[in-house]
Amino acid sequence: MTAEQPVRAAAKERRQRPAGIRSREAILREATRLVTVEGIEGLSIGRLAEAVGMSKSGLFAHFRSKEELQLATIETADAIFQAEVVEPTLATAPGIARLRALAEAFLGHLERDVFPGGCFFASVSAEIDTHPGPVRDRAMASVANWFALLETTAREAQADGEIVSNVSASQIAFEIHAYLLLANAQYLAAGDPAVLDLARRATDRLLASLAPARR
Amino acid sequence: MTAEQPVRAAAKERRQRPAGIRSREAILREATRLVTVEGIEGLSIGRLAEAVGMSKSGLFAHFRSKEELQLATIETADAIFQAEVVEPTLATAPGIARLRALAEAFLGHLERDVFPGGCFFASVSAEIDTHPGPVRDRAMASVANWFALLETTAREAQADGEIVSNVSASQIAFEIHAYLLLANAQYLAAGDPAVLDLARRATDRLLASLAPARR
Repeated sequence: MTAEQPVRAAAKERRQRPAGIRSREAILREATRLVTVEGIEGLSIGRLAEAVGMSKSGLFAHFRSKEELQLATIETADAIFQAEVVEPTLATAPGIARLRALAEAFLGHLERDVFPGGCFFASVSAEIDTHPGPVRDRAMASVANWFALLETTAREAQADGEIVSNVSASQIAFEIHAYLLLANAQYLAAGDPAVLDLARRATDRLLASLAPARR
Repeated sequence: MTAEQPVRAAAKERRQRPAGIRSREAILREATRLVTVEGIEGLSIGRLAEAVGMSKSGLFAHFRSKEELQLATIETADAIFQAEVVEPTLATAPGIARLRALAEAFLGHLERDVFPGGCFFASVSAEIDTHPGPVRDRAMASVANWFALLETTAREAQADGEIVSNVSASQIAFEIHAYLLLANAQYLAAGDPAVLDLARRATDRLLASLAPARR
């Protein structure tokens, strides 16, 4: 994502890039960025056409409806999240090292401004949590997958005896996820990456508090 | 708020209640509820007039612009939050008892569905954190006040020796605030008050981990 143009530059860029060369994937990547600033409900084919400098009919060749565009944008955001946050952690050992790596990778994707409005899924779920439908369901499924990954990784750390087992893995996942989401909100509000250290310290403190007593 | 009509019932109620008897305060209370479902940016004088069954000109007598209405709605939400969450805790002793009471009061206001879309300020800040202006600033000031209250209360607990002092009060406030916000998001997503217990347990575990070593 770092090679992509920021959303703000999209208008400038318009005249330089002929509409025809844009791939579906490149359009969807710009849509994910736009959504974290303007919201998923405002993401219409007309608005996206304007943002990427294409004609509405050009975009209709890719997406037949607003809902199809919204769902494809969420799929793309999920793929970006997997590539930027989840996949880099798979090199670490399962258990406590990976739990720490997942938290760090999440904070890193905020710090690198992968999306201009912070975590894509935090932004979208806050917007549509009270609006039932397939778009909400698809976004919530991504959030649930991330939560399940934290929970499974905490369970692996327990199975290996790296952390105690008298606290449930879902409780541990809840606490880490909570730190990461608040870091996201505060980073957006303050624009200062120093707030991310609060989540780093909180995760370290949590994992330290779960260390088994020495025998 | 429990005596107020839910937003969904507003349409039904229209014919029974003459527009003239509505006070500014009652209108603003309905506006706070509407905002947690539809967002603060969608809160126009026209939309609110429709929701409360008044004429636009009737509402213009109270609010001269959309921004004035938005700011007045945030003031009202703040007053509701103070009455429903903060004030009931002032009877408890400052320090750890009040810290626990603040967390419980926040979760209680979610469980009582004081606002139909969960915490008013979580909802509004997620929507407008990337949109600079007086509405964002006013909402962020309320969030900052709440955070400062948690921090001051943690500091009182430290001054009384109820919890250790080698973790900063702002770190403690960050962790509790994080649990409460995630509980809010998960309660909205799942509609099940059982998720609130994750935040209760997290707060209990945090405060227990901060207990001074016995001498």
